[in-house]
Amino acid sequence: MAHRVVIVGGGFGGLNAAQQLRRAPVQVTLIDRRNFHLFQPLLYQVATGALSPGEIASPLRYVLNRQKNTTVVLGEVVDIEPARREVILKDSSRIPYDSLIIGTGSTHSYFGHPEWAGLAPGLKTVEDATEIRTRILLAFERAEKETDPSDRRANLTFVVVGGGPTGVELAGALGEISRDTLRKDFRHINPADSNIFLIEGEDRVLPSYPPKLSEAAERSLIELGVQTRASTRVTGIDDHGVTMKAADGSQNRIESRTVLWGAGVQASSLGRIIAKRTQSAAGQPDPGKDLLDRAGRVQVEPDLTVPGYPDIFVIGDLAHAVEDPKSGKLVPGVAPAAIQMGTYAAKVIEKRLAGRKVEPFHYWDKGSLATIGRNHAVAQVGRFKFSGYLAWLTWLFVHLLYIVEFENRLLIVVQWAYDYFTHNRGARLITGKWASSDDALGPKSLRDDVSPAVGAARETS
Amino acid sequence: MAHRVVIVGGGFGGLNAAQQLRRAPVQVTLIDRRNFHLFQPLLYQVATGALSPGEIASPLRYVLNRQKNTTVVLGEVVDIEPARREVILKDSSRIPYDSLIIGTGSTHSYFGHPEWAGLAPGLKTVEDATEIRTRILLAFERAEKETDPSDRRANLTFVVVGGGPTGVELAGALGEISRDTLRKDFRHINPADSNIFLIEGEDRVLPSYPPKLSEAAERSLIELGVQTRASTRVTGIDDHGVTMKAADGSQNRIESRTVLWGAGVQASSLGRIIAKRTQSAAGQPDPGKDLLDRAGRVQVEPDLTVPGYPDIFVIGDLAHAVEDPKSGKLVPGVAPAAIQMGTYAAKVIEKRLAGRKVEPFHYWDKGSLATIGRNHAVAQVGRFKFSGYLAWLTWLFVHLLYIVEFENRLLIVVQWAYDYFTHNRGARLITGKWASSDDALGPKSLRDDVSPAVGAARETS
Repeated sequence: MAHRVVIVGGGFGGLNAAQQLRRAPVQVTLIDRRNFHLFQPLLYQVATGALSPGEIASPLRYVLNRQKNTTVVLGEVVDIEPARREVILKDSSRIPYDSLIIGTGSTHSYFGHPEWAGLAPGLKTVEDATEIRTRILLAFERAEKETDPSDRRANLTFVVVGGGPTGVELAGALGEISRDTLRKDFRHINPADSNIFLIEGEDRVLPSYPPKLSEAAERSLIELGVQTRASTRVTGIDDHGVTMKAADGSQNRIESRTVLWGAGVQASSLGRIIAKRTQSAAGQPDPGKDLLDRAGRVQVEPDLTVPGYPDIFVIGDLAHAVEDPKSGKLVPGVAPAAIQMGTYAAKVIEKRLAGRKVEPFHYWDKGSLATIGRNHAVAQVGRFKFSGYLAWLTWLFVHLLYIVEFENRLLIVVQWAYDYFTHNRGARLITGKWASSDDALGPKSLRDDVSPAVGAARETS
Repeated sequence: MAHRVVIVGGGFGGLNAAQQLRRAPVQVTLIDRRNFHLFQPLLYQVATGALSPGEIASPLRYVLNRQKNTTVVLGEVVDIEPARREVILKDSSRIPYDSLIIGTGSTHSYFGHPEWAGLAPGLKTVEDATEIRTRILLAFERAEKETDPSDRRANLTFVVVGGGPTGVELAGALGEISRDTLRKDFRHINPADSNIFLIEGEDRVLPSYPPKLSEAAERSLIELGVQTRASTRVTGIDDHGVTMKAADGSQNRIESRTVLWGAGVQASSLGRIIAKRTQSAAGQPDPGKDLLDRAGRVQVEPDLTVPGYPDIFVIGDLAHAVEDPKSGKLVPGVAPAAIQMGTYAAKVIEKRLAGRKVEPFHYWDKGSLATIGRNHAVAQVGRFKFSGYLAWLTWLFVHLLYIVEFENRLLIVVQWAYDYFTHNRGARLITGKWASSDDALGPKSLRDDVSPAVGAARETS
């Protein structure tokens, strides 16, 4: 009977592990809650109307359908029994393994404020992205109808919490939408009057990047009309805005109807289950206490396995791994790291079956990239740091390179090229629960609003 | 003050009316519940995973943003006051008009069985399409997990109710998905074992087409594995299947977990409001009784206006109009008819303002087209009737020609070309309420199912 490899999660780590094993003498089962792999680095482009969900998603069955040794299972793993070597799905079914690779990623963390989740959606899933897209577009629609100047201003105020790559890219895209894309779309408002705030707790945006690149990113953001607020922590979010506290202790409030969350992440809940099951089986009094770091990530061995369980690998955002034993530096939670970890875990399994020696995982830092609107990005590749147009071209090239399906690559190239020259974003649909409801637009009277504007528009025609 | 034209509905009729008026000395307000124009003839391709919603939708503000005399309003018209010449939105605001064009289209009709709506979704909106897409894909996923042969068969049985163009195109696409697209995607089922039924009350599919083309369409459907049931009426739909009665009185039942509705349409509810407001104002005892036809469409004058109200036009699917006064034949509810009606109504307004004579509306029948899977379609253009590959090329060409945005045209060409050669359908995402829920997959145990199959797959690896 072939060695059974069960992979939980079809993200960058899990998918690459499965693909690495395509010619291995093993039987692979890939389990995911969703039926597609999502290219998360471009999810903010769906949230801002530049791409459609289908263009950054690839059906897992399709990607793996020629790989005869691999079965895709749609399901959610809710428990693990390491002693019996089985994972348990939500529907109570069990899938046995000889080697287990877990890469279920991370989710938003609201720093102990779960009530903020509904007020400030984060960006992890396709549904998050279409929800954010709808909120952004409806804010402009409400502003167009609004007659009260302060309500109009609140509708044209966008707050992005978190100045990491996601927050910077979202804020940059918002700048582009308001200054460029929607320029001619409204008759009663000028979208360029929008206020876009980017709030960051550390003393600069992109705190994980070299200071020089943070400065370049901030300059590009300011050019796009984004106001950055560094060294500032959010203390409250409600229906009408955001309350903040600066490092100097001063309080501040922004009236806004659209708050987006790009701040904290916490590891998938499977981390806790791994901790509980592996540590209690080892007979410890407080199961799993020391296995997880503060963000809930599993602190793995140099070969990415769970201490005491050489048959269980943890990869990607769920793993707390060091770049190499000497430096002790943490592997960052980025796509290239997940890809390398997935490939490494698969290779370890292959080598063990072949009776070959296994080296510790070594992270090859390919660099960091973040884009800020059109033509601007910041990049670090090895010792080279650069920003501006060249960085932006690098960003374009790298992202297209890593898109899984050739078809999606074509669709994205067509769309980027077209939108670059026309300043359009074609996928700006208001869909979902708000779609057919005027309630989302608020109860204000349109009458006083439309009539004078109809007159005003006439004069310019 | 410029003549105020209010257009309700941004479908084919309303959008073309607005565009026709772009240089007219009028002030145009286009009101729609949605922020985009939808290319409905390709909606079935979204429902079957070939295209993404954004690719067949165009933001109305974008399409009209260079048209200085036009304002787009996001809102739902719930009432009309013809005497004051105002339309009333759901938020109670009022918009005054001098000429009013109403083209709010049609919705599903379940023939007095509203309880079927949840069991057999129809295909009118983007949300309908993604819901149908999710249902189709989940049916295959459930079948893959199912161990009971009869439950598996019910999951692999699809029933399309209604043999008009929508039903034929949906059934054809289902045939293609099961026989071609998903061919290699599963390990425990063969998607080609699917049963696809197309139920039609009349004695043939495409009853509005010439009999010769109905026959050609039926042959193509059979080639794709679709079983047609003509002269058959649905008498019941429940969680587990469909009950039918044939013309000879025989009862029949199909066990199926996926029933799709392509049968009846009824005019938008605005038809009833028009009838009530215009006929009661005219002082009739039973307001609006005679204004609507059985499907709820407004029976308009030869110039598409409401009797007694030369300032109110009704166009598109909402209008019951005759092709020309002599024949008395009804204008069909298709996109080219809506486009012609919208353009005509706009021209009437222009001519009146210029003091010129107005001719009655004359429908130019450009023909009928329906596609059945790849390479097959049926077409009638004037007196020419043809089917097969040439008709399919005609279908391709005509649909691309009418897509509103050039960007969408590019995206669709890329996708069609790619999918044609690779037999892929890239946009097959399971999204929405079922997305993260195993419940949709049913409570059956996976254990007995996966393990033997893992073994079976191993033998072939």
